[in-house]
Amino acid sequence: MITETHLYQEIHQQPMVVRQLLQTAAATIHPLAQAIQARGITHVIIAARGTSDNAGRYAQYVLGAMNGLTVTLTTPSLFTLYQRPPRLGNALVLGISQSGKSPDIVAVLAEARRQGALTAVITNTPGSDLAQQGDFVIDLQAGEEKAVAATKTYTASLAAIALLSAALAGETQLGADLQHLPEALHQTLTMAGLIEQIAPRYRYMQRCVVIGRGYNYATAFEMALKLKELTYTVVEPYSSADFLHGPLALLEEGFPVILLAPSGVMVAEMGGFLRPLQDRRAEIITISDDPALLAQARIPLPLPATVPEWLSPLTSIIPGQLLALHLAYTRDYDVDAPRAIRKVTETK
Amino acid sequence: MITETHLYQEIHQQPMVVRQLLQTAAATIHPLAQAIQARGITHVIIAARGTSDNAGRYAQYVLGAMNGLTVTLTTPSLFTLYQRPPRLGNALVLGISQSGKSPDIVAVLAEARRQGALTAVITNTPGSDLAQQGDFVIDLQAGEEKAVAATKTYTASLAAIALLSAALAGETQLGADLQHLPEALHQTLTMAGLIEQIAPRYRYMQRCVVIGRGYNYATAFEMALKLKELTYTVVEPYSSADFLHGPLALLEEGFPVILLAPSGVMVAEMGGFLRPLQDRRAEIITISDDPALLAQARIPLPLPATVPEWLSPLTSIIPGQLLALHLAYTRDYDVDAPRAIRKVTETK
Repeated sequence: MITETHLYQEIHQQPMVVRQLLQTAAATIHPLAQAIQARGITHVIIAARGTSDNAGRYAQYVLGAMNGLTVTLTTPSLFTLYQRPPRLGNALVLGISQSGKSPDIVAVLAEARRQGALTAVITNTPGSDLAQQGDFVIDLQAGEEKAVAATKTYTASLAAIALLSAALAGETQLGADLQHLPEALHQTLTMAGLIEQIAPRYRYMQRCVVIGRGYNYATAFEMALKLKELTYTVVEPYSSADFLHGPLALLEEGFPVILLAPSGVMVAEMGGFLRPLQDRRAEIITISDDPALLAQARIPLPLPATVPEWLSPLTSIIPGQLLALHLAYTRDYDVDAPRAIRKVTETK
Repeated sequence: MITETHLYQEIHQQPMVVRQLLQTAAATIHPLAQAIQARGITHVIIAARGTSDNAGRYAQYVLGAMNGLTVTLTTPSLFTLYQRPPRLGNALVLGISQSGKSPDIVAVLAEARRQGALTAVITNTPGSDLAQQGDFVIDLQAGEEKAVAATKTYTASLAAIALLSAALAGETQLGADLQHLPEALHQTLTMAGLIEQIAPRYRYMQRCVVIGRGYNYATAFEMALKLKELTYTVVEPYSSADFLHGPLALLEEGFPVILLAPSGVMVAEMGGFLRPLQDRRAEIITISDDPALLAQARIPLPLPATVPEWLSPLTSIIPGQLLALHLAYTRDYDVDAPRAIRKVTETK
């Protein structure tokens, strides 16, 4: 029974996990925001891998657009294998890892401490090696994540970043927006029925691209990663702009393109992007709450809740998680323990 | 005749283009290095798309490892569609674009100027909109690039970045290393015969991954992009570390994995990475000058020239360009004008 899998259950725990985080994390996040402001920090350097790296991609946009911060996704090998770490200057160095175990991520934070930088950690394991290196530790408190593919720790990491952004901006409206998230996540989970219904259509899909831009660039990466891990399909994420600079040549009749387009600034961009897809007769699968965009899709996946664009990555990843779950199930794969990979990956 | 195509000719012009750049670009690059040092800059923000973005990836490692600079690959949509540019602080903002035309990249540099940041541009079109925004303009002087897929402007951009790195480091040895590059590129082009011979083996390959880490992370991205643009194969680039954090699940018997492993620090890392590939019976194609690694490959592609690791991305991309050329030719595709894409892509 699919409902008995850890993955199914953890996907469905997300409203609860985010609700709880919104209640508890402010106690760590507000002092962190104050420390960032007291030090006059304008630059954030993030160290993360896999799903957590995609949370870092979200931070790049949200901390950039809402808080004017420049965000760098760092290159751990400079700190480890090459042993030539760059000067970190007056940056906040932020490590994101559910397990807090990967030695390369720990090494970046340790070097940041050595250089006297402010450090913070987002993790589901507050006793981990990584957490030891954080001046501030944001505990996701998501409960143990048993499925190998991360879901609830991803949305919880996004919520932590959104909370930090709201604390830095100090605007009451943003805090209020956040409070609506658990209900929006709950509504979004009602897409499960529709997605279960369409999953068999993709039983023999071998390759696919996922397009998102701006805030949902992160969602494209995370959805692609879930589909790869769980369904063993080669799925490549792209920003709509990058896709036009070359990879567009891939498309042929029936090539599946998943378009992430929750309402906001990017809807117009995604509307313009449809044209070359239609010209090449791609199969367009659209995740959106915009009726006009949905009407142009071969397979429309309507988002039941509309949230402010900066928070939309929290809801728009849910159909991605559900599609990966149901497609893996359709293919008789083990959704809790995909072949070849383990829950904790330790890289140097 | 393949030798009459622009792509073939431009690939083979690379030793000459790089030789010329090494002679002429110092006049711009030395004053730029002085300006970076005079301002006490420790942070470089790069705006680029497509092939130029891959040159930016190289800069992330070389300017990090050799010069201690933190390098950010920026997110143009914050400057354009969202109109919420972050604070750039005391950064060098570097635009890379062979055409100098894409409005999103121009917008990042224009905002950098408005904020009073130091700006520099690497371009093959010194009269372009982008070049207007550069305090320093490094003209690649590669001659017009007629094939849609960029090759000589890529290696020329890498050479410009390597020159900047050497100028900042001020070590004579690095300058001497650079002078050996044209000859090394020339030797590497002798791989063409071998690659022409193995290309038919991949006539029906539909998907593939390319693995590189450290300096050659950029090479993995650029090789994947060439294969996508020219052969319409879904090819995904990965660092060996990121690949272990999930995508490893993709592998099945015969899955083609191209391993970039020129000699240097990363050879040991790549050697360790072979194990899970062998366990899953992947098809391993290795680009390396390390005999032990080559001996473990199903298809070894020996690099004839050994160069210092920091310069190896200039030589190791050549077999990638050649494979894309010959595979496209094997498939009867137009190598100079791939379907759907044009030479200059203008994105907002």
